[in-house]
Amino acid sequence: MTERPRSGGCVVLLSGGMDSATCLAWARRRFRTVHALTVLYGQRHAREVRSARAIARRFGAARHVVLRLPLGPLLRSSLTDRARPLRRTLSGTGTIPATYVPARNTILLAVALGYAESHDLGTIVLGANAIDYSGYPDCRPEYLRAFQRMARLATKAGVEGRLQLRIAAPLVRKSKSEVVELGDRLGVPWELTWSCYAGGPVPCGRCDACRLRARGFARAGVRDPLRPTD
Amino acid sequence: MTERPRSGGCVVLLSGGMDSATCLAWARRRFRTVHALTVLYGQRHAREVRSARAIARRFGAARHVVLRLPLGPLLRSSLTDRARPLRRTLSGTGTIPATYVPARNTILLAVALGYAESHDLGTIVLGANAIDYSGYPDCRPEYLRAFQRMARLATKAGVEGRLQLRIAAPLVRKSKSEVVELGDRLGVPWELTWSCYAGGPVPCGRCDACRLRARGFARAGVRDPLRPTD
Repeated sequence: MTERPRSGGCVVLLSGGMDSATCLAWARRRFRTVHALTVLYGQRHAREVRSARAIARRFGAARHVVLRLPLGPLLRSSLTDRARPLRRTLSGTGTIPATYVPARNTILLAVALGYAESHDLGTIVLGANAIDYSGYPDCRPEYLRAFQRMARLATKAGVEGRLQLRIAAPLVRKSKSEVVELGDRLGVPWELTWSCYAGGPVPCGRCDACRLRARGFARAGVRDPLRPTD
Repeated sequence: MTERPRSGGCVVLLSGGMDSATCLAWARRRFRTVHALTVLYGQRHAREVRSARAIARRFGAARHVVLRLPLGPLLRSSLTDRARPLRRTLSGTGTIPATYVPARNTILLAVALGYAESHDLGTIVLGANAIDYSGYPDCRPEYLRAFQRMARLATKAGVEGRLQLRIAAPLVRKSKSEVVELGDRLGVPWELTWSCYAGGPVPCGRCDACRLRARGFARAGVRDPLRPTD
């Protein structure tokens, strides 16, 4: 999970949000080959896939794969189940948010692992963030380390020593405003990114993701092009 | 990965083969609540799903979910790609078989983990076997332990201590003939199980899975009802 430059290939888990867009920009500077993988797992914000496509095109990903997994009915969460209300409380209160999706990052990383091994890509890049989203257990460095260790034991490429599989989470210890600062330096087109959980035609401005985004831009002193001028 | 009796709930990954059928029979004796989860990941042997449904019905699983994941085009393997020949060599030669599917068990276990947490089931039961299929890295006990460790860090239920998530692989150290002996004792209806990789209307008798099955029955001295009388 260090940020040393490397010359191999990677796959970036690209949701279309500001964190994964920043990861893609970061990966483009560090890896010779960059693929992008968007996994739709039945979440409300399918709007993000349009953003993901536009961002992958903008950064010239060698390949962008969009995968639809019909997991919604299997997993209990307010993010995959329209009948559950989105609790509008910022995390950081010590509880795990209602938007937690059981095993979400484990499922995303598992699919990315199969993809990475199939395409000889040694690194999986993920926009996990342990600071602002500290309520999610599968965004913590100790979880990511445990996944990486398991991944090396799981794969033919790992066992044979062909790929030293690595999980890179370049944002894991950054605050949202630090993400905005990094993305800005790397030329992330913020107008193409999408954060809102509510799934409307414009950001709702009230869900966790909208409020974290607004706070990040405000603290970084950067204007969010998606935000209506007050 | 011990076999102590417990009273909680579990989900069994049920492919419809003889190993997972034996696991379901085993789980019915040990857990109060038993769910079955069949994941189709684009493999040739979709025929197995009919077997899985019949077996789940026979053992009275509280719920049987069949999930289709369109992973075939993403993963490179002779099991998911019809253009690749099925190599007909028994494993045990120190190489990983061509039927290896990148991250297969990690993807199956990740989905099962999300399901287990969503339904308050503390154990995931898997028919992984490190003896006859020793070529598969994701069937080894050290891999399963690493997954279990990761799973406890990944989940809200694990972090909050509500579920002590456990991966149970009751067959992991059994030979195929020991699996036949155990399944026979537990009343597994072998005629409902399906092993062949080739996807024809009757078992091909030549693929790895058919040959391992035949050897297992022969060594256990049990007649396989699916085998034509010689």
